[in-house]
Amino acid sequence: MIVVGERINSTRKVIADALRERDAEAIRQEARNQVEAGADLLDVNAAANPGKEIEDLQWLIATVQSAVDVPLAIDSPNPKAIAVGLSICKKTPMVNSITAERKRLEDVLPLVARHDASLVALALDDAGMPNTIQDRMKAISTVVMELEIVKIPLSRVYFDPLVRPISTEQGQAMMAVETIRAVKREFPEARTICGLSNISFGLPKRHLINRNFLALLVGAGLDAVITDPTEREIAGTLACLDALTCKDEFCLKYIQLCREGKI
Amino acid sequence: MIVVGERINSTRKVIADALRERDAEAIRQEARNQVEAGADLLDVNAAANPGKEIEDLQWLIATVQSAVDVPLAIDSPNPKAIAVGLSICKKTPMVNSITAERKRLEDVLPLVARHDASLVALALDDAGMPNTIQDRMKAISTVVMELEIVKIPLSRVYFDPLVRPISTEQGQAMMAVETIRAVKREFPEARTICGLSNISFGLPKRHLINRNFLALLVGAGLDAVITDPTEREIAGTLACLDALTCKDEFCLKYIQLCREGKI
Repeated sequence: MIVVGERINSTRKVIADALRERDAEAIRQEARNQVEAGADLLDVNAAANPGKEIEDLQWLIATVQSAVDVPLAIDSPNPKAIAVGLSICKKTPMVNSITAERKRLEDVLPLVARHDASLVALALDDAGMPNTIQDRMKAISTVVMELEIVKIPLSRVYFDPLVRPISTEQGQAMMAVETIRAVKREFPEARTICGLSNISFGLPKRHLINRNFLALLVGAGLDAVITDPTEREIAGTLACLDALTCKDEFCLKYIQLCREGKI
Repeated sequence: MIVVGERINSTRKVIADALRERDAEAIRQEARNQVEAGADLLDVNAAANPGKEIEDLQWLIATVQSAVDVPLAIDSPNPKAIAVGLSICKKTPMVNSITAERKRLEDVLPLVARHDASLVALALDDAGMPNTIQDRMKAISTVVMELEIVKIPLSRVYFDPLVRPISTEQGQAMMAVETIRAVKREFPEARTICGLSNISFGLPKRHLINRNFLALLVGAGLDAVITDPTEREIAGTLACLDALTCKDEFCLKYIQLCREGKI
């Protein structure tokens, strides 16, 4: 399982404060903690203060890269910020994210192509939030066609089924799971990704719901997850699922994490 | 999810002691605890002392039925004990278990048919322990044919994929998951069941592996589980999975269990 660490996000107060005060050590510590906990990539988001986003993102990327050497996922609604971010990444980055919305495709796909970046693509098009698996697959199919035109290989693209909370729409969990299964069936070269925390919004003991949702997604073929790997519950679940799905040979990593008391 | 409580089993020392001393209150407490924790059926096994099994099983069934009114799963290798057990059950019981082995089918299926019991059928035939999904489906197909002959409807039968530990054979987890999926696809009327604890034999922190294995199985369509519902980890996982798969409408039971501090 590919783990994208989600903690360096300016919607979190601790990150917004560190950005404002240029507290490099706070950012470096967040980066190191996540990589130590198993993150394969780190999401970086400086979008909470749009007027300063480009400047903030440049500082954020440079700061994270001074602490760890994993690739970054440039998380921004602003194509100009994405362009600047991509140009200063030391390792081939991920762009988080596009949708099948016409404007977004036109603005962002050329940047992704130019930098050989990987890409998160949300199952959302100009018709708005999808209500069914079919709506989601329609948006995904639109993205697949556009990728062919700009010659971005499907193997670099992670489709996100878009998750809404089960507290208000209970069918959302299985709809995400079935969308993952449909992507793996219809576009076997494509990858899949999902954020976990939306699913449990409004419910108590959210970590219980999040970790069980993760297991259901992995059973459907999920390739990557956007999450907080420093949460012990998530780390334990990821280690177990790798052992159960033969991605951790002889369960060696699982046994080691148990010995180290990390899960 | 249908939960079969596994605690009243004479291979556990506390149960063997209670059987020997005819300690009815110890047995009643095990029964009440499991039903309180959500067991839909209770497994009863008195087979550890074969010479006394029939006598022990009669006492055990009567004792459990004096405390709770859920149906029982008669768990025995001995067709004579099964016959006696079935005859004294107050509610339509389950027989745990048959295999596709010729002798077992001949001995047990007539008893199941006569009592309209439900049935656990292990994916095992006279060729011995199955190594592949195909071996398992071959055994399951044999059972399906035999059930047709004695007119036991598939909807009363729970196929068990047979689980061996991932510590020695790592592919076993996904083989069980894929067998569940294959049964649901090829025999949509049939049910599926699985025990959890074998999978983690020989590994540390077994409850972590067990609960994640349960989630993978549920994602593949598992209908019933043989487990200890009084384990907090398992209870939490079962409640989450019911919420995520729309079996707990509006997540009401999940929220209540959180409020009561039970998960």
